[in-house]
Amino acid sequence: MGQYQKIKGTQDFYGVTANKLRTIEMVSSKVAKTYGFKEIITPIFENSNVFIKNVGEESDVVKKEMYTFKDKGGRSITLRPEGTAAVARSFIENKMYANPGMTKYYYYGPMFRYERPQTGRYREFNQFGVEAYGSDSPLLDSDIILSGYNIFKSLGIKNVVLHINSIGDAASRLNYSSFLQTYFKEYIDSMCIDCQRRLTTNPMRILDCKVDKENIAIKNAPNITDFLTNESKEYFSNVLKTLDALEIPYIVDTRLVRGLDYYTDTVFEFVINSNDELNGLALGGGGKYANLINSMVGKNVSGIGYAFGLERISAVMDKQNAWKDLETITDCVILGLDDESKISAMLLSNELRCKGLTVEMDYASTKLKPQFKLAERVNCKYIIIIGEEERKTGLYMVKNTVTKTQKKISKDKIYEYIEEEK
Amino acid sequence: MGQYQKIKGTQDFYGVTANKLRTIEMVSSKVAKTYGFKEIITPIFENSNVFIKNVGEESDVVKKEMYTFKDKGGRSITLRPEGTAAVARSFIENKMYANPGMTKYYYYGPMFRYERPQTGRYREFNQFGVEAYGSDSPLLDSDIILSGYNIFKSLGIKNVVLHINSIGDAASRLNYSSFLQTYFKEYIDSMCIDCQRRLTTNPMRILDCKVDKENIAIKNAPNITDFLTNESKEYFSNVLKTLDALEIPYIVDTRLVRGLDYYTDTVFEFVINSNDELNGLALGGGGKYANLINSMVGKNVSGIGYAFGLERISAVMDKQNAWKDLETITDCVILGLDDESKISAMLLSNELRCKGLTVEMDYASTKLKPQFKLAERVNCKYIIIIGEEERKTGLYMVKNTVTKTQKKISKDKIYEYIEEEK
Repeated sequence: MGQYQKIKGTQDFYGVTANKLRTIEMVSSKVAKTYGFKEIITPIFENSNVFIKNVGEESDVVKKEMYTFKDKGGRSITLRPEGTAAVARSFIENKMYANPGMTKYYYYGPMFRYERPQTGRYREFNQFGVEAYGSDSPLLDSDIILSGYNIFKSLGIKNVVLHINSIGDAASRLNYSSFLQTYFKEYIDSMCIDCQRRLTTNPMRILDCKVDKENIAIKNAPNITDFLTNESKEYFSNVLKTLDALEIPYIVDTRLVRGLDYYTDTVFEFVINSNDELNGLALGGGGKYANLINSMVGKNVSGIGYAFGLERISAVMDKQNAWKDLETITDCVILGLDDESKISAMLLSNELRCKGLTVEMDYASTKLKPQFKLAERVNCKYIIIIGEEERKTGLYMVKNTVTKTQKKISKDKIYEYIEEEK
Repeated sequence: MGQYQKIKGTQDFYGVTANKLRTIEMVSSKVAKTYGFKEIITPIFENSNVFIKNVGEESDVVKKEMYTFKDKGGRSITLRPEGTAAVARSFIENKMYANPGMTKYYYYGPMFRYERPQTGRYREFNQFGVEAYGSDSPLLDSDIILSGYNIFKSLGIKNVVLHINSIGDAASRLNYSSFLQTYFKEYIDSMCIDCQRRLTTNPMRILDCKVDKENIAIKNAPNITDFLTNESKEYFSNVLKTLDALEIPYIVDTRLVRGLDYYTDTVFEFVINSNDELNGLALGGGGKYANLINSMVGKNVSGIGYAFGLERISAVMDKQNAWKDLETITDCVILGLDDESKISAMLLSNELRCKGLTVEMDYASTKLKPQFKLAERVNCKYIIIIGEEERKTGLYMVKNTVTKTQKKISKDKIYEYIEEEK
């Protein structure tokens, strides 16, 4: 039986759970479109270097969590662990940097990380995200954040608070990194082997270490915010000023750094702030990447974006009772009481379906009981009965299961009749 | 640069090309819903056995085209090459066979086959499909076929003709298979090494061989239709009778067998029949699988389904000019002529976006020229201008780019004004 079970950490969505996923995707897309974002769909897998080089060789995602394998042509390919590097690859390959003005895309779909499966965390999970390239203005940061905020509002999610920080520009990060190298030197023997390597390769990653997170040196380390250049400080203060003007509630969280290498300056997360077990849950986040495209292709184009976890959002909407209209409705069930009436039932169902109604029928049985059972099970509003007499007269019996009334209606007028009663 | 190119055989969809893919998915889903299909979303990868055992060990898909690899836990996993076996796995794992009545799901998403890339053929490609389990009636076959036919009609695709055949039930196939084993014996030395193996493992697969397809033995082999049991013959004639009643045009094509092991009885394809280069192009197809679930889990549940290739459909819609409304529309561009006016522009754009309008702005510049350039580029209907005076009076300049008129409107009334003009 094991061979016919889904792979650990993957999910089946069907019926209502699929509707939930699609609802989040559709509402998010609709909001993003009002900002002028168009959709982009990149492949499920990429050349592994797309992620290794851009998410960061020292990040947990790249070091431990990627689904990487060789295809039959010997290429090293990786199931995408996130969207930003993939969209950046597409931006470059399709020479979007040559477009005048900004390039703005939203995406949604499955991502893959080999993490330990736990409640609400999957190895194949779904994200919605946006990417905006081509402007270096702090106003853009605020407007992008506002678009995310509006997505949560449109979904009906309550108690979302923005956590925001600046991790500085390249110069700020170099200052900080070189400080940390000196700072951690005297503690490094008490740290894990990964951190010992990170001391030379990427000392900022030591701060995210899951093994050493209780180490006093990490707890007492100064924040990047103390090392910002004047430009980065001013940029960040402009972002905050605009957030104030737009009345977006936020908390400056100087410990917020995000786990991926490509971020610069603004980083942010949307976090639930409530008195229940959802408190502190991050729904997603993002930040600015001034140098991502430059490091890939030598073009000076600044980007910013975010990604949300759809499973997280879905779980929060469950707890907050935020869903509307998830159940699908069956308008009619059509009963045929003999073989020829079955064909008449198929013809009528085709007509009603082509006009947009949802119609079901029992294909196998001409008996009343199983056909009524089906009608009951799908909870349809109308039951239409066709037997020999109905075929002869062309008048079909139409039962309204809500008002409990029934009436013979000419077969050509049934759609009109149903529409009138709506 | 090669490391920042998409993997051969994969695609980027963005803007209009993404809209095309989504349009096909949405229209197909909408039609399927009228038949009572609900959506199912299965994982991108499965235990390799899900496909090996059910698509067929001797099929080209399994033998040559699968993206199979080991994950970090040592599991053999395969990127799904098709939907039916994956949905069957979900049907079994989620015990859907225990539901009273039928189980009907539609799905769409990427599939993966390592084939030689050529025009219109990709290694990552998209399918839409439906699966109906739990009825053995030939009426179901006809209604499922009708649903596919209605999808093409709803998409506006012309000249679609149904090709249909019966490959018989298990007994018919056993007859045929044992005949073929004898029949091919005397020709087998002139055939490829794969066919030599197939003679013992699965002689019906010899008929699909791409290497030996010109071999006279294959060309002269009798068709499966000559080996059908009486039950299969009657079943097929009932399917055709219902298709006649439903007025679905079809061609019985006795050479149609489909390349996957799980089919029994009815198999079909939707093919373009026209006087241009599209003639003969198959948009997709499917068939019945009476024994798929039984062979997986020992439950006697019959299934039927089809899958369409979205890239194919998209290419046909291109050629037939079948697309409507693919371009996205920008309603307004809002100009801010100084820093403070930029903030006012952001506030107004937020208000209009929350009401559903698509609004763009230039984040970086307070100069008129680049902001007007943006308005021109996105071809917006309204340009709204905010400067110092507009901020003081609360009356913003609203230009209608279609009628070439302009008017000062109170900032609170702009949405109403735009709605009224619609």
